[in-house]
Amino acid sequence: MPELRKDPITGRWVIISTDRSKRPTDFVRESVEIKGISFCPFCYGNEHSTPPEILAYGRNGGGANSPGWKLRVVPNKFPALGIEGDLDRAGEGIFDKMNGIGAHEVIIETPEHQATLATLPPKAIEDMFWAYRDRMLDLKNDRRFRYILLFKNHGEAAGASLEHTHSQLIALPIVPKRVREEVDNAKRYFMEKERCVFCDIIRQEREDGVRVAAENDQFIALAPYAPRFPFETWLLPKQHASAFENHQSPVYSSLARMLRDVLNRLDSALLRPAYNFMIHTSPIGEETNDHYHWHIELMPRLTKVAGFEWGSGFYINPTPPEESARYLRDAT
Amino acid sequence: MPELRKDPITGRWVIISTDRSKRPTDFVRESVEIKGISFCPFCYGNEHSTPPEILAYGRNGGGANSPGWKLRVVPNKFPALGIEGDLDRAGEGIFDKMNGIGAHEVIIETPEHQATLATLPPKAIEDMFWAYRDRMLDLKNDRRFRYILLFKNHGEAAGASLEHTHSQLIALPIVPKRVREEVDNAKRYFMEKERCVFCDIIRQEREDGVRVAAENDQFIALAPYAPRFPFETWLLPKQHASAFENHQSPVYSSLARMLRDVLNRLDSALLRPAYNFMIHTSPIGEETNDHYHWHIELMPRLTKVAGFEWGSGFYINPTPPEESARYLRDAT
Repeated sequence: MPELRKDPITGRWVIISTDRSKRPTDFVRESVEIKGISFCPFCYGNEHSTPPEILAYGRNGGGANSPGWKLRVVPNKFPALGIEGDLDRAGEGIFDKMNGIGAHEVIIETPEHQATLATLPPKAIEDMFWAYRDRMLDLKNDRRFRYILLFKNHGEAAGASLEHTHSQLIALPIVPKRVREEVDNAKRYFMEKERCVFCDIIRQEREDGVRVAAENDQFIALAPYAPRFPFETWLLPKQHASAFENHQSPVYSSLARMLRDVLNRLDSALLRPAYNFMIHTSPIGEETNDHYHWHIELMPRLTKVAGFEWGSGFYINPTPPEESARYLRDAT
Repeated sequence: MPELRKDPITGRWVIISTDRSKRPTDFVRESVEIKGISFCPFCYGNEHSTPPEILAYGRNGGGANSPGWKLRVVPNKFPALGIEGDLDRAGEGIFDKMNGIGAHEVIIETPEHQATLATLPPKAIEDMFWAYRDRMLDLKNDRRFRYILLFKNHGEAAGASLEHTHSQLIALPIVPKRVREEVDNAKRYFMEKERCVFCDIIRQEREDGVRVAAENDQFIALAPYAPRFPFETWLLPKQHASAFENHQSPVYSSLARMLRDVLNRLDSALLRPAYNFMIHTSPIGEETNDHYHWHIELMPRLTKVAGFEWGSGFYINPTPPEESARYLRDAT
């Protein structure tokens, strides 16, 4: 008998199939292969084929937009939003619109074309998180923005258009609906119980153990109770923290080790799957609070999502999270 | 400059790209091909390879589960939910669950393996809608159910696992989140204005004309103002109606002609794309109301949705709805 489970943060019910439960070997897996192509704008020597860099780490000598960097942040060449102009809001009869003001940046995590986050040294992943933070802190000075989305598409099946490993940042003049819902629901939970719902989840999951995929000094990796996708995994700081960008140095180092560990477990259990991750953090202007707990949501792309799931908000997940967590715990 | 637009029903903001606007020829199109396979459980003579039929139309003589039918409804052989048992609700610490009680049925719209909804005669499509209605009315007698999802996945890219044309029905003991949100938001709008938000949209769109893809006596096909996907199209009854299943005969006939018309326009403009559609209607027990307006949401699968869009609830649409509506209006 399958189960209907409710996500305590969003209120979404999902079907967890138990009869036709899918093991890692049941998914048609297209492993992500780095092919190495003739021209890559993210490799050394091609710095001028991206827009001028915003930030670079690790450059020893050499000028901007030349080789020698370890990490580089550049504007997206084909931005989804434009950075110039005032934010004009307008109605169109009953409809509402704004002009598409925003920032769209690319974080090139390494000059090595063949690398993936799972194979990079932990320090390089830590630098990626520092770059996320630096760009967030800078963009938060721009009063037009309400939210900064940080995410990564790894592999073509996950929507990556260039295979050289990179993340993206989109600064928005609105708060995305899913984030707004999470924050508001967490706030209601707090008002009722005087506790953070994420802290409650972490407490229960650590006692229970069955949905814990991995853990280190500062972070825990969980299969959520009501995941929409097989092997969906969340990384959360074990101590309450409402904003990704307000941590001290040891936390980013611990986060880098945790993410690298989980990505290696995924690569091992699912043979280098395509994946997406994104950071869910408190919106700009409400960074410090007791109710919202920032985290990373990581989703390997294993199933073809039937479009009806977008239309209904209703998901069927063929792998119980207890099983995905166990596969990841057992993976080495 | 791109635009940020807000959907007035869900409150979701989307980015509509205007600079890199995509025309129909810009999408990598994989046309849906009916290949004809060695064995098809939905063809004449193979009736016993499905679970016993629940409903059949048009059979002249011959017993149940034998050839001669025009439309057939059977239980899904691999149901996502189980029909037997009581609905047990339980908590697991802070989590909530139910056992997975529900119905999962398949509507085989024609015995013709090579047919698609776009090529079937209008009467066959009307029969499909009658079958949807008959099954809804029957399942609504089951007090365990709160919502009945009706949807179609056409083509492998849209999640169809069998190529012989069919729709699906899932009866659920909960109301899906997206539907609940739509109904609640429409109710709030009505409480404020004493008008149905969908009726307001239809009124404005008919005056404006730019987002109207097609129209007939009873129905209008619109590109919504803030669509998540390129060529997303909604079919709505022009007169307020809160429940799909409570119409009289002429309405289903008109709906069948409207859907067939729109599918032919999509096939022509986009070269037979994979698509999904689903019916959004009022939940069980609140069928008759002034605030919610049932409709069909139709989404061709043209783009690879980056997984981050699921995680953020934030969508980037490369085709403005004014353009998709114009392409569909001009298609023949």
